Amino acid sequence: MPQIRTEFLSASQAARLIARTGTDVVLRGLCAALEADFARWPAFEKSIRLARHSARGVIELMPVSDARDYAFKYVNGHPANTALGLPTVMAFGLLAEMATGMPVLLADLTLATALRTAATSALAARHLARAGSRSMALIGAGSQAEFQALAFAVVLGIERLRVFDPDAGAMRKLADNLAHAGVPLDIVRCSSSAEALQGVDIVTTATAARRRAAVIDAADVRPGLHINAIGGDSPGKTELAPELLQRARIFVEYEPQTRIEGELQQLPPDTPVTELWQVLTGAAPGRTSDTQITVFDSVGFALEDYSALRHLRALAREAGMLEPLDLVPALADPKDLYRLIREAR
Amino acid sequence: MPQIRTEFLSASQAARLIARTGTDVVLRGLCAALEADFARWPAFEKSIRLARHSARGVIELMPVSDARDYAFKYVNGHPANTALGLPTVMAFGLLAEMATGMPVLLADLTLATALRTAATSALAARHLARAGSRSMALIGAGSQAEFQALAFAVVLGIERLRVFDPDAGAMRKLADNLAHAGVPLDIVRCSSSAEALQGVDIVTTATAARRRAAVIDAADVRPGLHINAIGGDSPGKTELAPELLQRARIFVEYEPQTRIEGELQQLPPDTPVTELWQVLTGAAPGRTSDTQITVFDSVGFALEDYSALRHLRALAREAGMLEPLDLVPALADPKDLYRLIREAR
Repeated sequence: MPQIRTEFLSASQAARLIARTGTDVVLRGLCAALEADFARWPAFEKSIRLARHSARGVIELMPVSDARDYAFKYVNGHPANTALGLPTVMAFGLLAEMATGMPVLLADLTLATALRTAATSALAARHLARAGSRSMALIGAGSQAEFQALAFAVVLGIERLRVFDPDAGAMRKLADNLAHAGVPLDIVRCSSSAEALQGVDIVTTATAARRRAAVIDAADVRPGLHINAIGGDSPGKTELAPELLQRARIFVEYEPQTRIEGELQQLPPDTPVTELWQVLTGAAPGRTSDTQITVFDSVGFALEDYSALRHLRALAREAGMLEPLDLVPALADPKDLYRLIREAR
Repeated sequence: MPQIRTEFLSASQAARLIARTGTDVVLRGLCAALEADFARWPAFEKSIRLARHSARGVIELMPVSDARDYAFKYVNGHPANTALGLPTVMAFGLLAEMATGMPVLLADLTLATALRTAATSALAARHLARAGSRSMALIGAGSQAEFQALAFAVVLGIERLRVFDPDAGAMRKLADNLAHAGVPLDIVRCSSSAEALQGVDIVTTATAARRRAAVIDAADVRPGLHINAIGGDSPGKTELAPELLQRARIFVEYEPQTRIEGELQQLPPDTPVTELWQVLTGAAPGRTSDTQITVFDSVGFALEDYSALRHLRALAREAGMLEPLDLVPALADPKDLYRLIREAR
């Protein structure tokens, strides 16, 4: 019998792998993988993701490739899913060989999506936040919150976290999970975003409402703040007021996609932005003064999933956690597809 | 433990399901499913497929959705794969709920791609070939050949097949497989496409070369012929000369995609075409005279995979052949993603 060549990392195994490896180690590894892959930016064929919107949410396909590897992610975003007992975001991804089209890895990417988003945020902040930043406000204590807090603690050395979410239960969940994570973080729960923003070096906005919102007040934004804007990632879904954006230097992952999906959708199409890879490679400056306001207008890009898939595969291989998956047929005679049916009889 | 909600139809099970059900029954069922789904054409959100080309081949993502279901297919096309012992085309697909984004079915679609392509061809020919057509020339005896022959025999009542392929081994393989299929077909192997075309009602071109070819000579095309053009399905890959196309009425699946990928890529962008769904619903005429030359310029469209996924699922469910697949996590508390890691420790 010809051999099955697709490997599978199931959702349970992915969670076990991340738990066993340690979120701190995974986040650091992802950050290094992302930095190396973003540095090869021109080598990738890129496109905006293919999104299908409905009243309830969105389903997206996110492909990217270089000369050797093809990757894509399937991901949804359905905020009302929690009422049905389902996650708001579910994701899986595939790696394939460009030379043959053979799918070589299928993997759950639900946890990995949260981890790679947070690692990308921390990587960007390392170049965009003021040197020596130690405190962060976190607006929104939803599914992404723990991952953002941990990535900034582990990668950037953030020590103090000031959280605001209108749902006190969500803030309790966050504090409880972070206590469990074993990463030293001084956490203050706040009763408004204004309170959360007091004295911080960085603010991360990660809210879920699918509408044009302004989750922080421009009056609370001090010179020198780095704004890591995660939640505005779909047409009609934004978190920052245009007036605030106009005071800032804006950094993005992949400009054509962010113009459609990011905070940037609110600004004129000729608003200047800098792509993250340019900062990482030194082709463009990041922060140039301690009083500048910087915004990382993050929507999530396919390259981050490419990095996550390859990094997870390496970890899973070492841990012996990949299983064969009979996803596409192996043929005894590759020129005779019909024979598959004869042999199955 | 929360429940796994994704079902999986593996490559082996898909082959077993098709063998057990019978290709004739599957082709008839697919044809009926396709006809019903094409009739609902305006209900679907459609887009051209997302293709990544390299020197060796192409990898494509093909999504489509209606208000309830989302479907996509991953498929490659790498003609040189056979030298590596790999199929030239491999495919799998997913069904998900638009309301929640939950992936509900992952299935191998390698055999199904061949079957749905053939069923779509036969469905189109039922409306475009002359009434009472009983003979077909088949140019190309590759992976798609058996499926085309069977679909036209089963759905259209084709009794006589005249085959030409420069590779005599491929013609032997085809004849052997068709003898095994148990569908009555009188098969003549020919030494040229001109010979194959003698006296036939229909010609199917299904060749693999990735270049601008003219696999049939315009001089061999008699009035009234229906040309089912399958192989020209990618930029730079065509099978028919522009002069021949200009003598014919052209029918397509989804016009924006065929303008890029089909035989149509050779003609001026304002060349009139008719979409298949219009013919199936009576919104536009199919063949209007017995002397007309008709061309179905087929490139394959995502809706055909939607139909195939749903039809296969129904068959597999009845046969008890679906397995649970741990593709995305189920959460004990859907608002607490991080808890997955705690529980996996």
